[in-house]
Formats: sequence, C-alpha cells, structure tokens
Amino acid sequence: MKVELENVKPMDIEKRSFQIITEELGDTPLIPGTELVVKRCIHTSADFDYAGNLCFSPNAVEKAMEAIKHGACIVTDTQMAKSGINKRALARYGGEVYCFMSDEDVAEIAKKNGTTRATASMDKAASLDKKLIFAIGNAPTALVRLYELIEDGKLNPELIIGVPVGFVNVVQSKELIMETEVPYIVARGRKGGSNIAACICNALLYMIDNKRD
Amino acid sequence: MKVELENVKPMDIEKRSFQIITEELGDTPLIPGTELVVKRCIHTSADFDYAGNLCFSPNAVEKAMEAIKHGACIVTDTQMAKSGINKRALARYGGEVYCFMSDEDVAEIAKKNGTTRATASMDKAASLDKKLIFAIGNAPTALVRLYELIEDGKLNPELIIGVPVGFVNVVQSKELIMETEVPYIVARGRKGGSNIAACICNALLYMIDNKRD
Repeated sequence: MKVELENVKPMDIEKRSFQIITEELGDTPLIPGTELVVKRCIHTSADFDYAGNLCFSPNAVEKAMEAIKHGACIVTDTQMAKSGINKRALARYGGEVYCFMSDEDVAEIAKKNGTTRATASMDKAASLDKKLIFAIGNAPTALVRLYELIEDGKLNPELIIGVPVGFVNVVQSKELIMETEVPYIVARGRKGGSNIAACICNALLYMIDNKRD
Repeated sequence: MKVELENVKPMDIEKRSFQIITEELGDTPLIPGTELVVKRCIHTSADFDYAGNLCFSPNAVEKAMEAIKHGACIVTDTQMAKSGINKRALARYGGEVYCFMSDEDVAEIAKKNGTTRATASMDKAASLDKKLIFAIGNAPTALVRLYELIEDGKLNPELIIGVPVGFVNVVQSKELIMETEVPYIVARGRKGGSNIAACICNALLYMIDNKRD
C-alpha cells in the first residue's frame, strides 16, 4: 500500500470525521435528538455498532442537558473517564466531576463488605446532596448498586449513562438500569468503556454549548 | 428479559472475563507471545476485531518488555491514556508516563507552526534523553510526526504503540509506522483509542509482573 495522507487542517479534522460518519451511516435510523450523541460515540471508537446499541429513555438527552444547565455534577467509576470529560465546559454551568474509586474510605468499606470498590463508591456518591449524573464506563457492579439504591428510594439521579464494557454481568446490569424510571443512556450489550462514558458526557456538553454540529 | 446476575466474586471478575474471551476466540490464530496483549484489548473493548487487526513487528512484545525492565518511559498523546496506564507498575522499573498535550509551550509551537498539538508534543518528546515507548491512542498526526522523526534519524524509540482511532489519516498513519524499522504494535484500520493504548501498556507491564494469566 502506498500511503497517501489526506490534506485536512488540524481545526477541520473533527468536522471532516463527522462528515464521514454521517455519510457512512446513510439511512441508518437514529432517534431524533440523539444523533450527536451516537455520532460522537462512533467518532470515539470507529465502531458503528453504537448506531444500533445505544438506547435512550424518552427525552433523555433533553433532560440531561437541562440537568447540566442547572449545575448537575457527574460521578464516574474510573479516573480515565474523569480525565476524558471536559471539566471546563461542565464548570461553566457549576458542575464538577467526581470519581471516588481511589478514595481510601471506599477501599476500606469495599474490603469490609466484600464488594467491589465501584459498589462502595456509588454509596458514597448517593450521600452527596447534589443533582447527579452517573457516567459508568467500567463496572457493572456500579450499575447494579445504582439500581438497588434507586429501588430503595435512596437515589434519584438526573441521568445514568450506563456503558460498562465486558463479559461478566455487563449485559444484565444495563438491562436492570433500563427497568428503572430514571432517565438513561445505555449501550446495550457488552460494549462501552470509559472513553464512551466520557464522550457521551462531552456530547451533551457540546450540544448545550451549541458549538459543534 | 428477566435479569439474572452471574455470581462472581469481585476478585474473580477479570479471570472469568479472560476465560470467556479465550473460549469465544476458539481457534482464532494469534501470534505466539502476543495472546495476552490481544486478549486485554478485547477485554477493554468487548470488540473481537482486535483479534484480527493487531499487528506486531517481530518480537515486539519481548523487546517492549525488555525496554520497560530497563527503565523505558512512556509518552502518550492524551491525558486519558496517561490516566489509564498503571504508573505504579511502570515506576517499579524506573519508568514514568509523559503527556505533553496540555503544555503551554506545545500549544504555542503548534499554533506558530500550524500543526496539531500532537505533532508539537512528539517533537518535545523526541528531545528527551531517555528510552521511549510511544503509546498513541488518539492523534494520527502524532504517528505521522514520529515517522518523520525516525526517517530523519532524530528518534529511535523502543516501541511505538500505534492505535489512534478515527476517520482522517488514521489508517494511513498506522501504515507509515509499519514501514519503519522500529518495533511496533499497531491496530490496523480505523479502530483504537486511548483506552486501547493504555491497555496495551498495562498488558506489557502485567506480563512482566507475571501476576496475570
């Protein structure tokens, strides 16, 4: 293969990428209002499966944008997702990003209770007196615990981004979240990841900023 | 769907995941010595495409492990990848992780030269007097610049992990790296990401530690 680079200016790379994604999606049906979330997930993964596996509760995107505009904070289950979320954009609306996975008290409680740290960090998040969006890209046990907290009336989040990746209880944990009355964006099946969790948060932020198309 | 959770202890989740991956890979041919890298990429993405798209220069895994054991440092093109790499494991051999993407001097030079910050940050990395492994999960322009630096005799890295994701020059940039004489691990095609870049670094570290199977 002879390598020929496409001549695209740095500032135009993202725009050109979204053009290609839109072209290749063709007539693939997407839920109106969710297109930019779906396309950003494809942009982040080069995986068109996200055009089919992303599930949205009714008006999830609009509700999430409203929550962010009213200062909602984001809780993630990995430092990687926290690192990937545009914290400056979120801060404009008063929100911040939390990840409790490396906290000593979380490690101690998890050890004591024989749970994952993700489970313990969801309990810690539930004690916050704030509007919360959960962005779960790694741990199905985090989603299972969120389900329990919601069913017990101990948590009422603005949105759950349920996109853990993997092979053990990942599929099931996502189905559980879709059984709740809470707004959700879920990547049905095994796929997802911290990168997808962060990119969905950023898609919501950029839609509010109205800077991207 | 009735949701039934599989009863797996927290400490056994990763082991069980690798069992499932191994089962589902079945007879898929993998290059001897690269299996754990491939499986960890699948573990991180739930995407079995990595069984086919990962390309290794001869003995790339062994060479990378030797470099790490001799104190090689890792340069990444995203804070997310830096966040995901097990820095404690790397530090045991004397290495550390660098990401120059947020550095002010990199932003200034990129602006002055009309390049991406990724390009400028590769130049900054090339000035380090250290053994270097590059883990590129986002910017094809980083790979293009590494190719130029290598061809100009200005850089001789221990390994290039070439796994940017996307649609503009991503495929081509990876082919360029595979034309060099430098050891590489490349995800041929559009797929990859910061998560994949970090996970390949961690796979190499865990293989050295010999703690995982």
